[in-house]
Amino acid sequence: MMRVESDTIGSLPIYEEAYYGINSYRAKVNFAFTDQKVDRTMIKQLALIKAAAAIANQQAGTLSKEKAQIIVTASEEIIAGKWEKEFIVDTFQGGAGTSTNMNVNEVIANRGLELMGYKKGEYQYLHPLDDVNQSQSTNDVYPSAGKLTLLVYIEQLNEALIHLIDSWHKKAKEFQHVAKMGRTQLQEAVPMTVGESFSAYAHSLTRCRERIVHLSAELLTLNMGGTAIGTGLNASYRYQEHLYEELNRRFPRSLRPANDLIDSTQHTDSLASISGGLKTIAITLNKSANDLRILASGPRTGFHELNLPARQSGSSIMPGKVNPVIPEVISQIAFQVIGNDGAVTFATASGELELNPFEPVMFHNLFESCQLLTRACQIYADKCVAGITINETVCSEAVASSTGMITAITPQIGYEKASVLVKEALAKNCSVEELFTQATVLLTETDQ
Amino acid sequence: MMRVESDTIGSLPIYEEAYYGINSYRAKVNFAFTDQKVDRTMIKQLALIKAAAAIANQQAGTLSKEKAQIIVTASEEIIAGKWEKEFIVDTFQGGAGTSTNMNVNEVIANRGLELMGYKKGEYQYLHPLDDVNQSQSTNDVYPSAGKLTLLVYIEQLNEALIHLIDSWHKKAKEFQHVAKMGRTQLQEAVPMTVGESFSAYAHSLTRCRERIVHLSAELLTLNMGGTAIGTGLNASYRYQEHLYEELNRRFPRSLRPANDLIDSTQHTDSLASISGGLKTIAITLNKSANDLRILASGPRTGFHELNLPARQSGSSIMPGKVNPVIPEVISQIAFQVIGNDGAVTFATASGELELNPFEPVMFHNLFESCQLLTRACQIYADKCVAGITINETVCSEAVASSTGMITAITPQIGYEKASVLVKEALAKNCSVEELFTQATVLLTETDQ
Amino acid sequence: MMRVESDTIGSLPIYEEAYYGINSYRAKVNFAFTDQKVDRTMIKQLALIKAAAAIANQQAGTLSKEKAQIIVTASEEIIAGKWEKEFIVDTFQGGAGTSTNMNVNEVIANRGLELMGYKKGEYQYLHPLDDVNQSQSTNDVYPSAGKLTLLVYIEQLNEALIHLIDSWHKKAKEFQHVAKMGRTQLQEAVPMTVGESFSAYAHSLTRCRERIVHLSAELLTLNMGGTAIGTGLNASYRYQEHLYEELNRRFPRSLRPANDLIDSTQHTDSLASISGGLKTIAITLNKSANDLRILASGPRTGFHELNLPARQSGSSIMPGKVNPVIPEVISQIAFQVIGNDGAVTFATASGELELNPFEPVMFHNLFESCQLLTRACQIYADKCVAGITINETVCSEAVASSTGMITAITPQIGYEKASVLVKEALAKNCSVEELFTQATVLLTETDQ
Amino acid sequence: MMRVESDTIGSLPIYEEAYYGINSYRAKVNFAFTDQKVDRTMIKQLALIKAAAAIANQQAGTLSKEKAQIIVTASEEIIAGKWEKEFIVDTFQGGAGTSTNMNVNEVIANRGLELMGYKKGEYQYLHPLDDVNQSQSTNDVYPSAGKLTLLVYIEQLNEALIHLIDSWHKKAKEFQHVAKMGRTQLQEAVPMTVGESFSAYAHSLTRCRERIVHLSAELLTLNMGGTAIGTGLNASYRYQEHLYEELNRRFPRSLRPANDLIDSTQHTDSLASISGGLKTIAITLNKSANDLRILASGPRTGFHELNLPARQSGSSIMPGKVNPVIPEVISQIAFQVIGNDGAVTFATASGELELNPFEPVMFHNLFESCQLLTRACQIYADKCVAGITINETVCSEAVASSTGMITAITPQIGYEKASVLVKEALAKNCSVEELFTQATVLLTETDQ
Repeated sequence: MMRVESDTIGSLPIYEEAYYGINSYRAKVNFAFTDQKVDRTMIKQLALIKAAAAIANQQAGTLSKEKAQIIVTASEEIIAGKWEKEFIVDTFQGGAGTSTNMNVNEVIANRGLELMGYKKGEYQYLHPLDDVNQSQSTNDVYPSAGKLTLLVYIEQLNEALIHLIDSWHKKAKEFQHVAKMGRTQLQEAVPMTVGESFSAYAHSLTRCRERIVHLSAELLTLNMGGTAIGTGLNASYRYQEHLYEELNRRFPRSLRPANDLIDSTQHTDSLASISGGLKTIAITLNKSANDLRILASGPRTGFHELNLPARQSGSSIMPGKVNPVIPEVISQIAFQVIGNDGAVTFATASGELELNPFEPVMFHNLFESCQLLTRACQIYADKCVAGITINETVCSEAVASSTGMITAITPQIGYEKASVLVKEALAKNCSVEELFTQATVLLTETDQ
Repeated sequence: MMRVESDTIGSLPIYEEAYYGINSYRAKVNFAFTDQKVDRTMIKQLALIKAAAAIANQQAGTLSKEKAQIIVTASEEIIAGKWEKEFIVDTFQGGAGTSTNMNVNEVIANRGLELMGYKKGEYQYLHPLDDVNQSQSTNDVYPSAGKLTLLVYIEQLNEALIHLIDSWHKKAKEFQHVAKMGRTQLQEAVPMTVGESFSAYAHSLTRCRERIVHLSAELLTLNMGGTAIGTGLNASYRYQEHLYEELNRRFPRSLRPANDLIDSTQHTDSLASISGGLKTIAITLNKSANDLRILASGPRTGFHELNLPARQSGSSIMPGKVNPVIPEVISQIAFQVIGNDGAVTFATASGELELNPFEPVMFHNLFESCQLLTRACQIYADKCVAGITINETVCSEAVASSTGMITAITPQIGYEKASVLVKEALAKNCSVEELFTQATVLLTETDQ
Repeated sequence: MMRVESDTIGSLPIYEEAYYGINSYRAKVNFAFTDQKVDRTMIKQLALIKAAAAIANQQAGTLSKEKAQIIVTASEEIIAGKWEKEFIVDTFQGGAGTSTNMNVNEVIANRGLELMGYKKGEYQYLHPLDDVNQSQSTNDVYPSAGKLTLLVYIEQLNEALIHLIDSWHKKAKEFQHVAKMGRTQLQEAVPMTVGESFSAYAHSLTRCRERIVHLSAELLTLNMGGTAIGTGLNASYRYQEHLYEELNRRFPRSLRPANDLIDSTQHTDSLASISGGLKTIAITLNKSANDLRILASGPRTGFHELNLPARQSGSSIMPGKVNPVIPEVISQIAFQVIGNDGAVTFATASGELELNPFEPVMFHNLFESCQLLTRACQIYADKCVAGITINETVCSEAVASSTGMITAITPQIGYEKASVLVKEALAKNCSVEELFTQATVLLTETDQ
Repeated sequence: MMRVESDTIGSLPIYEEAYYGINSYRAKVNFAFTDQKVDRTMIKQLALIKAAAAIANQQAGTLSKEKAQIIVTASEEIIAGKWEKEFIVDTFQGGAGTSTNMNVNEVIANRGLELMGYKKGEYQYLHPLDDVNQSQSTNDVYPSAGKLTLLVYIEQLNEALIHLIDSWHKKAKEFQHVAKMGRTQLQEAVPMTVGESFSAYAHSLTRCRERIVHLSAELLTLNMGGTAIGTGLNASYRYQEHLYEELNRRFPRSLRPANDLIDSTQHTDSLASISGGLKTIAITLNKSANDLRILASGPRTGFHELNLPARQSGSSIMPGKVNPVIPEVISQIAFQVIGNDGAVTFATASGELELNPFEPVMFHNLFESCQLLTRACQIYADKCVAGITINETVCSEAVASSTGMITAITPQIGYEKASVLVKEALAKNCSVEELFTQATVLLTETDQ
């Protein structure tokens, strides 16, 4: 059973049971790139906006109470996770998000019509654009929903980061008194503790976390009210007045319109900035993951200062091999996030005139990066960091044998004599203690 | 109903009906990053390798004929698309592909056991490693399967590129006599034809196509036979002899082992090179997509020299607006491929010692880039290029009015006089023909 | 005339007149990559640190007043721009900046020796390491000097951005009442003013400016006091107490030590973050530069809504051609900064254990990006933005003829009727006013 | 003393002694970004083209023999390295290379005028555009000269790569019998030789070298003859006939015109492809540099399997420390080349219509990448690879102690038993030989 729908381009049969309409269907066919549909959290934020706009339109006197209520009901069903299969547009899409917006408008309209006792497609009673999209434009709805989605995902990431930071702090405390050699350029430098090392990871992540939280505050500034290109055309003064009130009732953070809606419609530098912030988190995760792989190198040779919890048999040919699989996947997540930043950068730099039509690929990458990093922090904390053990003997022997100990007495004997001592110690393969004794002898000799 | 399986780490219950085993299951749990499993074509190439290795092992006398046959049968079922839901490992994974290899080994073993009349998990009768993985290591199996997969995908891309190139050639022929202004730096330069312009797109893509075909020849060089780190340990001489014979019976291209298997185990520059080739295709697609958007700008102002087929209603607020949605999505695909190259670059550069453990993220991105570009070429050709129409009047008026025509007579009058003429023509807002007439007058005057 | 100097590796003759010593000379030979030496502002910040450290060491009682004064004098000469040719180390260098630090230590020591009446190289009287580098390590000195340099450069960029923002605001005011068509996806959307358009550029840059200023606050947190790997080894408590007091007397911003010096020695995420902030500025500059090129397209066809000041003859073959050369170079600067961010990202992600030895390439790129962007803002403002003129007739005709005007009456007639009207208007090539009249007719008709 | 020159924009005084003219001077002022002028080899290739074009124009009968000869003489002086300070245009420039072309035209014209006995600026006797630039356009001259320059630089890189490859082969031979542990994922895998390891580096670089040589063949296809946008406007048939003959007399490689000059004027995918090839070299250099740093880690802990020649004192605070400074700078060069590829990618993707005006930034980055890589190969070979020594005892002890030896007997005892053995060996901290003995015992036991 099919119903026929029409648009500017022509008419098409649509399955009677479908809540989506002709615009969604065209998009599904035109953008058949992948199996990935538009992000589900994004769909929910769009529905949230539709509900808020309906109330604001009602209060502005341009939408009947009945229509407004029906729109709110249908929107809230979507927010509750209903009708997921009706959102059929590919994550890769042209048209600056119009198809995504249209999809939400159509599903709300058809579900609304059903609730009102009409048949799907009888848009004269509840129109996807004239009613559901009233006072709105994809220009303001789409980026606003994308920002809300990012705020949701960044909050999840924030919590995952806190969890990972806590894990490092716990391990730092556990090993706070274990001395080990610090190394620069992979060469022994001077002693430190394992606790100091793990604290440093915690602090670097804390800085990254605070940075992304700060950067994400830009996302609280929405495009709503701007309608076409940020002019606010067709959005009444009273609508604008009520809209943010209603949005703020429905979203846990305090939202406000951009000061210059024309600017915020065309410039997506805030999204590029978020991507940069995510990249910095990725880089920092990669750093400690690299360190863990180095410090766990072994099991007989290499640094072998710490052990990672065994998670997988390491080899299909080498029995008993256990590999640092969690740090390895963390690094790969980091590479992906870095790559995604490249896509976001390119898309942001390619905006033209009053709109950047490449927001879909920005959001696709930003959402993926957030979600990957969130999972990465959780898995890193729970499946790796929490289970780290230290080979204390290896660590202490390294400290004892290292020529790096010379640094501590350099202020007394001077850099040049100290250099000579180290060179001799290495040549004679003697210990640090012996070195100290010799140093005293040498000092006395040379000072005579 | 559960069966219990064991590995180096311990024991776990596995669903009785599952063909995968403990290694796969651990990986599913450890790498729970996304909903995306390992690429299905990759799984099939792994199965192809398992089948070929089983035959080669049989011929080498290290695997019974019965076991070999069972492995071949189970592998061919996988190649035929069976048991898809048994491949449960996330596309993002640590362990250098070991879990993916283990998953294939386990499914083949358990399906084989079933075919032999044993229960799943009774690995003493058909072992995932001792039998299915015999003479192999993830070190050689995984990159080899990845290369075969890339060869399959690049062939699909090649065909899609040919289709797109044909589309441009057809349109070039259709508009070969339509004169238009050529523009450099978005400023009118000298006249050309629309046919020349479209031919140029065809030729640039042809060059990109030939380049990727050439670069992909490196992928015919497999790692098989190298086993652990490329040493060939545990792979008998006779196995190696038969293996490529059997691989070549089962794969449409001519495969051979790398000259230096140790090199090819640890260096993935060929993959980075393929990624670079894909990026160049992306860049080139983006170029013409940009041009189409510029030339279709309008409908009343802008260049408006050509019309793209309408594919979507363009706006939720601006009725009648039709946007260049296909070029827009093509550009976004390009941005994604460029971003993916960043991830591949990072992963390739991060190899260490005898292995690059970051191949999973390389393959993930390479496969996605190939598939996105393949779809992009098809959709671009069919939904955009094929339907382009030209506003011939706009084109011819541009030629007629342009001051760029002056270039043709510059050799006669000299650059400096020509410059003066153009400046005057622009000031007086006069036509090119008038300019020519004036030029003659001026020439005569100035030469007197 | 040569003097002989020695180090751990051996002895070398050094030109008698040279103020640099054996470590600098080895670096010059080892790292002979380019003609570019270490940034001159960086050298000055290193000297500033040396002066402050000398005072602090004196106050701590570990350096004689005479030596301290001599170090301060020599350092201040360097800050004043003297001895530039003595800084001979290539901008590309291994060793985590040690050679750069050594070069400064040696020049100060030898200049100091000269001032004290000794011969160069008589380090027993004033030692580059025991005295000039006292209580310091390259680990803390180098990144600290890099951060100070960045603070200097970012302040210059900040001022250049303010200048460019002012230029846009001035032009926005100049053209605040000129109506023009706003365009999304290069298609006419709804009317706006040129003033709104230029204000949007100003506001986007303001946001980018505020962001980089905020991000750069992280640079006020120095590594000084951390010495080797951040442990503070060999730096006395009293030295640390006086050091920041002295640094703050000599630097215009308020500096403080990092809370966790071990963290800040090994993690350079703050530098990657700055690079991301610079990239966002680059992207935003590129956006408006692109817009200018599009809007100035012509001179007879294209958008031709505005004119850029002519800066160069545009062509060696096409007389009279004038090209948008300033926007073109601005975009290229943007591409360079984006590329530089890639290098910084890679370097930051490659840190290992207690140090990131790749800071030299980070600073090289960060300094270049800052300086290029600073010049870009100045040149963009003065040679392009300030001279923009508007073709008001072109703008107003575009508004008058555009079908985009329909949006304003869509709330009255509904999206579907409005779409039909636009389609007809385009087909009939009729004006917007005619369209309105017809609309009234049609509305009446269809409502009957 | 000044002379006055004029162009489309107006008049300016030029220093009497200057060989450059008004166009160059404007460019110097407009593009005052850096201290880096246009690459000197590029200037020479432009002069080579000017000489060839003059001969071809003479043969075509459009340029007098006297003028042609004078142009050739002046061009050859430039090729010989004369007049370097006359080339005053910044490496960053708008205008698609026009200013660079103009600079060469002007210097040749003025030097020619001088040779002819006229005063500089008396262009009526020898005109920079009508004569020196005859039958040419920046559209064909600039990219052609860029390609020739790249061919020169890639040949230098090719030789440097051969040198580095030879160095690795020499060291591979020197250490061909030294056994060491191969490692995957930084964990011991199976034994190999140092010779195999170094050979692998040689082979990977060989593949990269062959790839760039192959990719660079695209550069032999020049734009010359295309003039404006590739139409060949104003270039006579006879000129085209003679031009390549003359170019091939003057350049060591066989040059030919592109089949589709319109395509080759606007598409710079060949340059992006070269950049990708350079990036792959960079990645591969980074890989072995990383390995060397890991294998040289120590001196007392870490892998410590090999020693890099000491090149610099490693620390300003830690006496006796010697760092892997050459591998570190090699990696940084690699990061820079990777970053530069980002700039080239962006620039290539931003071409519009009949020209890509962003070639200056492409060439800037490509030239830098080539030169940095060339120096990197030389310095890497001579200052690092050639001096590597092996700690054979460390290597052999690692082999002896490693549990990785189990793999060799796994085919006999099966993967599962082997895994158990490894686990026990690690727990008991026993040697490989003991393990073997125990294995025999265990095998017997378990088989009973």
